[in-house]
Amino acid sequence: AVYDLVEPLHPADIADLVELCDADERVELAAAITDLMSSDVIAELNDYVREDMMEALPAEAVAQIAEQLETDDAVQMIEDLDVADQQAVLAELDDEDRAAIESALAYPEETAGRLMSREVVAVPEHMTVGSLIDFLRENVDLANDFYEIFAVDHLHHPVGTCQLSWILRTPRNIALSDVMKRDQTLIPVALDQEEVALMFQKYALISAAVVDESGRLVGQMTVDDVVHIISEEASEDALLMSGAGEGDINEPIRDAYGSRVRWLIANLGTALLASAIIWYFGAAIEKLVALAVLMPIVASIGGNAGTQTMAVSIRAIAMNQLTEANTGRILWREMRVALLNGVTIAVLIGIATALIFTPMLGAVIALAMVINIVVAGFAGVMVPVMFERLDQDPAVASSVFVTMITDSMGFFAFLGLAVAAGLAG
Amino acid sequence: AVYDLVEPLHPADIADLVELCDADERVELAAAITDLMSSDVIAELNDYVREDMMEALPAEAVAQIAEQLETDDAVQMIEDLDVADQQAVLAELDDEDRAAIESALAYPEETAGRLMSREVVAVPEHMTVGSLIDFLRENVDLANDFYEIFAVDHLHHPVGTCQLSWILRTPRNIALSDVMKRDQTLIPVALDQEEVALMFQKYALISAAVVDESGRLVGQMTVDDVVHIISEEASEDALLMSGAGEGDINEPIRDAYGSRVRWLIANLGTALLASAIIWYFGAAIEKLVALAVLMPIVASIGGNAGTQTMAVSIRAIAMNQLTEANTGRILWREMRVALLNGVTIAVLIGIATALIFTPMLGAVIALAMVINIVVAGFAGVMVPVMFERLDQDPAVASSVFVTMITDSMGFFAFLGLAVAAGLAG
Ligand SMILES: [Mg+2]
Ligand SMILES: [Mg+2]
Ligand SMILES: [Mg+2]
Ligand SMILES: [Mg+2]
Ligand SMILES: [Mg+2]
Ligand SMILES: [Mg+2]
Ligand SMILES: [Mg+2]
Ligand SMILES: [Mg+2]
Ligand SMILES: [Mg+2]
Ligand SMILES: [Mg+2]
Ligand SMILES: [Mg+2]
Ligand SMILES: [Mg+2]
Ligand SMILES: [Mg+2]
Repeated sequence: AVYDLVEPLHPADIADLVELCDADERVELAAAITDLMSSDVIAELNDYVREDMMEALPAEAVAQIAEQLETDDAVQMIEDLDVADQQAVLAELDDEDRAAIESALAYPEETAGRLMSREVVAVPEHMTVGSLIDFLRENVDLANDFYEIFAVDHLHHPVGTCQLSWILRTPRNIALSDVMKRDQTLIPVALDQEEVALMFQKYALISAAVVDESGRLVGQMTVDDVVHIISEEASEDALLMSGAGEGDINEPIRDAYGSRVRWLIANLGTALLASAIIWYFGAAIEKLVALAVLMPIVASIGGNAGTQTMAVSIRAIAMNQLTEANTGRILWREMRVALLNGVTIAVLIGIATALIFTPMLGAVIALAMVINIVVAGFAGVMVPVMFERLDQDPAVASSVFVTMITDSMGFFAFLGLAVAAGLAG
Repeated sequence: AVYDLVEPLHPADIADLVELCDADERVELAAAITDLMSSDVIAELNDYVREDMMEALPAEAVAQIAEQLETDDAVQMIEDLDVADQQAVLAELDDEDRAAIESALAYPEETAGRLMSREVVAVPEHMTVGSLIDFLRENVDLANDFYEIFAVDHLHHPVGTCQLSWILRTPRNIALSDVMKRDQTLIPVALDQEEVALMFQKYALISAAVVDESGRLVGQMTVDDVVHIISEEASEDALLMSGAGEGDINEPIRDAYGSRVRWLIANLGTALLASAIIWYFGAAIEKLVALAVLMPIVASIGGNAGTQTMAVSIRAIAMNQLTEANTGRILWREMRVALLNGVTIAVLIGIATALIFTPMLGAVIALAMVINIVVAGFAGVMVPVMFERLDQDPAVASSVFVTMITDSMGFFAFLGLAVAAGLAG
């Protein structure tokens, strides 16, 4: 019964169904639909779910699945296995597949060399459209899905690319060199996937040639794979900023705990710094308990304002829109937004405090609020920019620093001003 | 000199260069390179920057640019103009372009109908590959770049799609119906761009047919445009969660202020609630000022833990991975992570507090911390899930609620337990 329900589904949908189940149900489901669990389904599975299933299978079975996949998908399946399992699977593969997969594994994770597909249609540029079509019809070995033809010279350097639609619209006797585009976006084999994704977005690419150090065509990146990278790269920042690590709901609990508790401990450190500042003003609080009541407001809204600016800056950095050339202008822009925000919030909280407590306390909290929101705006731009200059991912640690700054400044400005105004004298 | 530097650049790079300049420099730059400011460059510009430039141009000039663009890009350029300017530009267009653009504008923003391209290669399925190629060669009017051929029946309903690579690999006498794929992913004209993007990702699509209510083929979505949607949708959540609105560095200051200050005011509301709780325990704080020193730690780390879980949940909801079917399981998973995190942080802060203050105060803060982190985990899953069930975007307002819960609970649990333990008696 289950089988009949699952049978008409697309492999990607079957994979989603498997992911939705919990670990016990997965085993049952997989047993009920063994022959529907094709290699395509396995390739579509979430990394963690797939790893779980692969570890339960013998190396020959994993190798069998890998042989049915394109190299890039097979690599994805194998790269997360531990070294011993990986070796066992590689040993079961036929020579050609093993060589391709080993060559991919030789490149670091998340680089073009690791991710590219090694099957490319590359022909000499003087070939005519007619003989190209004949060549494509006769060569049964070629990949089935491809989006562009790459023209190469005798050193196998790419000299131009040609979309298939251009070929279909050109008479047989015209040479490829007369239809192809010579301006190409070439991807160095060592390029990080984040840069690859930005190139695809910027130049609206469908596929692009990957070249090695000597400029030889060694593979291609295709947009269907880049789409996953774009989504991954764009969404990882939200997760990193909140300190949630990979933030995958299929991640084992132990891993999720490990990546999250680190940031909570870092946060504990910044909270202790804030506490030390409060402690320093302990005598003032004892005399005027209203200070304790109001101080979290200044810290909390400053933190929020800092996070807003930080999110904007991190996004702009990720999209290559915030560079050395315009940091000053963006900082100035954010300072003006911060001033507007600061004055608005200061007026609101200042009046409320003046009415409930005293006008002087209202003035103190209003001023502290403006100061903290402006400082938050400054930190929200400069902390991510500083990490970027130090070649660190700004999404990873900016939050901790910005929070530290806005918390400390919030308590310090408010309590300090209160003491200076003689409110706790 | 500027001209020679800019001349060899790709339109997307010229657009980036224009964006990097500030408003005054832009006018100068545009004047120096007028004939390089092609319609392609305009189409690549950031929405705000383009709007600025379009508003400075007479309607005829905007119309001239629009006529050189494909409909989908022309629509993007025109949709943000105010109604009067839009009408003026439409009046300048030739009938065919105007009809196409008006039909797009009739659909809501961010739906397939608004975003699709109206140029599609659609042929009857009984056509042979040979006559299809002849048709493509002879019809000069067709779009230059396309990735798939759509086969339609006599009612213009799509019956199959065919990648160009399949056509190029098939002998001329074979009918399209023998090569095409009949299982298609059809996009309803009213579908939201977010769903379109998920379909492209899930099924690795290059293009897909868009159909109207009666199932007729009316256009197509292509992956080069979907790539921007994916990036936009994935990154908007980080910005929305932090309350930064669109978070575009080119957004006018007034708009950025408007979208951010709203959330700061909402945050002020939640901070006032937290203050009220502290006020209620004012007498206890007066007696034991250590309570004021320590209370922000419980609130702050609870807030961080809540944000972590919330970011994970919002991402899972956006990817259709967190549904009614597995909410219970995910909640249980997050509760276990929260318990591990809570106990870890509780032990650290408990011991430190016991050493610096008293063992009893250490016990109180440890227990308050566990409670707040577990509550944070619960809220981090349930608040976004609740918004999703109410058909609200969980990224928009979850933060305010989660922060409200963790702040209030942090102060309440810590101060309440301290009083209950007789620490401030
Ligand atoms: Mg999936
Ligand atoms: Mg992987
Ligand atoms: Mg691939
Ligand atoms: Mg693939
Ligand atoms: Mg990143
Ligand atoms: Mg990355
Ligand atoms: Mg750009
Ligand atoms: Mg728009
Ligand atoms: Mg939506
Ligand atoms: Mg388009
Ligand atoms: Mg386009
Ligand atoms: Mg969204
Ligand atoms: Mg959206």
